[in-house]
Amino acid sequence: MSDPFVVVGADAAGLSAASKFRREAPDREVVVFEKGQWISYAYCGMPYFIAGYVDRMSDLLSLSPSDVDERGIDLRRGSEVVGVDPDAKRVTVETADGNRTEQAYDDLLVATGARATTGPFDVRGLDGAFTLHDMDAAAAIDAYVADPDAYDPDRADVSAVDRERVERNRAMPAPESVAVVGGGYVGVEVAEALTERALSVHVFHRSGHLLSPFGETVGNRVEDALDAEGVTVHTDAPVDALVGDDRIEAVEVGGDDAETVPVDMAVVGVGIRPNTDLLDGTGVDLGPGGAIRVDDHGRTSLPDVYAAGDCATARHAVTGEPDWTPLGLTANRAGRAIGTTIAGDPTPVGDIAGTAAVKAFDTEAARVGILDRDAAVDAGFDPVSETVTAGSRSGYYPGAAETDVTLVADRDTGRLLGGSIAGTDRAAIRIDTLATAIEADMTVAEVERLDLAYAPPFSPVWDPVLVAAKVLNGTLDE
Amino acid sequence: MSDPFVVVGADAAGLSAASKFRREAPDREVVVFEKGQWISYAYCGMPYFIAGYVDRMSDLLSLSPSDVDERGIDLRRGSEVVGVDPDAKRVTVETADGNRTEQAYDDLLVATGARATTGPFDVRGLDGAFTLHDMDAAAAIDAYVADPDAYDPDRADVSAVDRERVERNRAMPAPESVAVVGGGYVGVEVAEALTERALSVHVFHRSGHLLSPFGETVGNRVEDALDAEGVTVHTDAPVDALVGDDRIEAVEVGGDDAETVPVDMAVVGVGIRPNTDLLDGTGVDLGPGGAIRVDDHGRTSLPDVYAAGDCATARHAVTGEPDWTPLGLTANRAGRAIGTTIAGDPTPVGDIAGTAAVKAFDTEAARVGILDRDAAVDAGFDPVSETVTAGSRSGYYPGAAETDVTLVADRDTGRLLGGSIAGTDRAAIRIDTLATAIEADMTVAEVERLDLAYAPPFSPVWDPVLVAAKVLNGTLDE
Repeated sequence: MSDPFVVVGADAAGLSAASKFRREAPDREVVVFEKGQWISYAYCGMPYFIAGYVDRMSDLLSLSPSDVDERGIDLRRGSEVVGVDPDAKRVTVETADGNRTEQAYDDLLVATGARATTGPFDVRGLDGAFTLHDMDAAAAIDAYVADPDAYDPDRADVSAVDRERVERNRAMPAPESVAVVGGGYVGVEVAEALTERALSVHVFHRSGHLLSPFGETVGNRVEDALDAEGVTVHTDAPVDALVGDDRIEAVEVGGDDAETVPVDMAVVGVGIRPNTDLLDGTGVDLGPGGAIRVDDHGRTSLPDVYAAGDCATARHAVTGEPDWTPLGLTANRAGRAIGTTIAGDPTPVGDIAGTAAVKAFDTEAARVGILDRDAAVDAGFDPVSETVTAGSRSGYYPGAAETDVTLVADRDTGRLLGGSIAGTDRAAIRIDTLATAIEADMTVAEVERLDLAYAPPFSPVWDPVLVAAKVLNGTLDE
Repeated sequence: MSDPFVVVGADAAGLSAASKFRREAPDREVVVFEKGQWISYAYCGMPYFIAGYVDRMSDLLSLSPSDVDERGIDLRRGSEVVGVDPDAKRVTVETADGNRTEQAYDDLLVATGARATTGPFDVRGLDGAFTLHDMDAAAAIDAYVADPDAYDPDRADVSAVDRERVERNRAMPAPESVAVVGGGYVGVEVAEALTERALSVHVFHRSGHLLSPFGETVGNRVEDALDAEGVTVHTDAPVDALVGDDRIEAVEVGGDDAETVPVDMAVVGVGIRPNTDLLDGTGVDLGPGGAIRVDDHGRTSLPDVYAAGDCATARHAVTGEPDWTPLGLTANRAGRAIGTTIAGDPTPVGDIAGTAAVKAFDTEAARVGILDRDAAVDAGFDPVSETVTAGSRSGYYPGAAETDVTLVADRDTGRLLGGSIAGTDRAAIRIDTLATAIEADMTVAEVERLDLAYAPPFSPVWDPVLVAAKVLNGTLDE
């Protein structure tokens, strides 16, 4: 117990682990290495900053470096861990000026997150083209879409910001139209955000409906919501190329309706992948999505090396198998559990249910578990699915809104496998009922008998979730 | 199988049972006796009708007599079942004109509901004094609070309405101030409703905080919400008498601050009790609250006699014991299950979790399970409780609102026993997560690890429910 607990990455998972460890083991040392300058920022808040719903970039930071320092955590920014020697229990750290040092550890947590993939596109080399996976990109986008004379430099009020990049984007003429490449949830959120900034917005999605992991009902409903606010949604529309010399001028779209759409901005959100380079050569086991495979306590296949957050797998509550669904709560929860475990109190990181929620203007959408038919079959289930549309409140109560609920169950056992919900009145939060039922291995018959709240302003006698369970149960009984 | 399925009472439980029975057993006969003229009305919607949120009384009816007829149900209104002979399997029916007939049954469902108790008060004999437990009372209140010249008779647009009573109340001068006697959820809803109708509203509650079954945190928060809209809430203020000769003139309040408060209207909501008179002398087992005791399929202690809805017990998910918590979903669900059972497919009525929700203007409140310390001890638990206040959304997202969550767990097992939630942003619907966890017998540690939805517009990384579970878990670990 002579060497410190070493954490690589100072965002949700890493700082949750370090903070919890220090609280539980105040006599022991923890060192956190962060290759960049940003720490503890709300990735999920960036679209809302760009939309203008959030005034200051600093609002998106949960902890400042001095907060971290006050917690007794030895935080070293600008320090990239470039190698791990699991036999010697030592990491190699490289600072921005090229200096290399070694740091021994008792336990190591890899919390290096993920990075945006750009597909075939050269986003970096083209003005007006962006990915949105860090705060510097958010600041740059915010400056780019502002009128050069109207930009408020106080928006990017954090010292870590890449000022030169902000200034360069600010100086360019404000764009009038944008191609959002990819209709996942970042794409949907950015489409809303840039509509709020008065751009003409096109969303291009490779497959037949937006938000592929949310299923077709939700995807179509969100498309309608975007369309109603003036966003042009192109489905079955893979973008083949970003066109332009210095600045973006158009996107080339393939598929059956191949076309070239002129734009003066592009935001590419086609996916992310886990940052695992520092473990190259260690022989660590990887899992789905190339993420670091961990057990139910967040342990990797290397001794005394843990992983958590967007770079790590998590066990799926339905399949019991490792899965990669990088989201904020998973990272925070796993970090906290691992900090507790390393401090001496073994604590499971918890399963994931694949719960996710997103909004498009006033339309809320959420999903949980296994919705995709092929995925369910691959996991050994015989999936049966029903979709209902039901009111969010008693029919006579003002504001009752049509709410779509899809439930998927296993034919043999009746077990609830997954669900989705879309609507405009308290729709997304209802997914938590299904997430809880899934984690409790409930059958659809058990869900149908749940004593959910009934009160006319919030729910009809039969909540939309119960209506869906009734209908799916009827189908299972046939 | 020669005699029909006989149902007593044509509201939620009775008509759910009859409808489901006819769908499942289309060749068999079902007769529904209803002593009054009203059927299938939304009791829970009456305060919102009085408030003016609902324009027409007919909006509160789910089914008309002709709808029921189309379902192949033999509905007989104005027919009171005054006796049951369980040995002969026969009921005695009395019509309004005093005629008595006998009706044989194969199976009998008692779904007679509950009626408002009035405590020591003579509500009937005093103009301007009301209870609110049927549609005629709602119509009368609506007419009474209207300016005589401005009353819209189309509001009470249902033929069953007691016109004479409406006209008599309409003719009286509109009241200026009201005493709402009882601060349960009907009291809270009526206080909001009559504030919307521009009355000066006083609420008198016997104990120290409103909404006793919701706990002190919720009660106080709802009191603040009423107070902010101009309602005067008197706690520890038992009303001893309604004062007045023909019309109410004041209420006499006891307790430490005894006073006489002049009012020209009173609405008494001090409780309800189950309607079981028709079973007097049959020796049927009664349970908590004097309700008809039933098993997990809704069977009473009498052969082939079932009971459901506000007149019957239901098994509590936490204690496993019979409980009496009359609410709309319980009635609908039990009726539906009993209809299925009698049609030949035995179906459990489902446990209740005591889930309830209410709003006071923009403040939402909900509760589930066992919150009361004494009740938990009586049920054999060692209750530990924590209350937290947490944000409903990410802190940087506009509209994040303080949400109070109380959780109660058993010290030995960590099992979640109950919870309450209050707040202004999607607060009440979050109770469904706790209801599901309680019905799944989850521990607080399992609740803490739930993969609930995180998205800045709907929930912070740690939903208020998860924050409360974390804190209570910490206490349980001590």
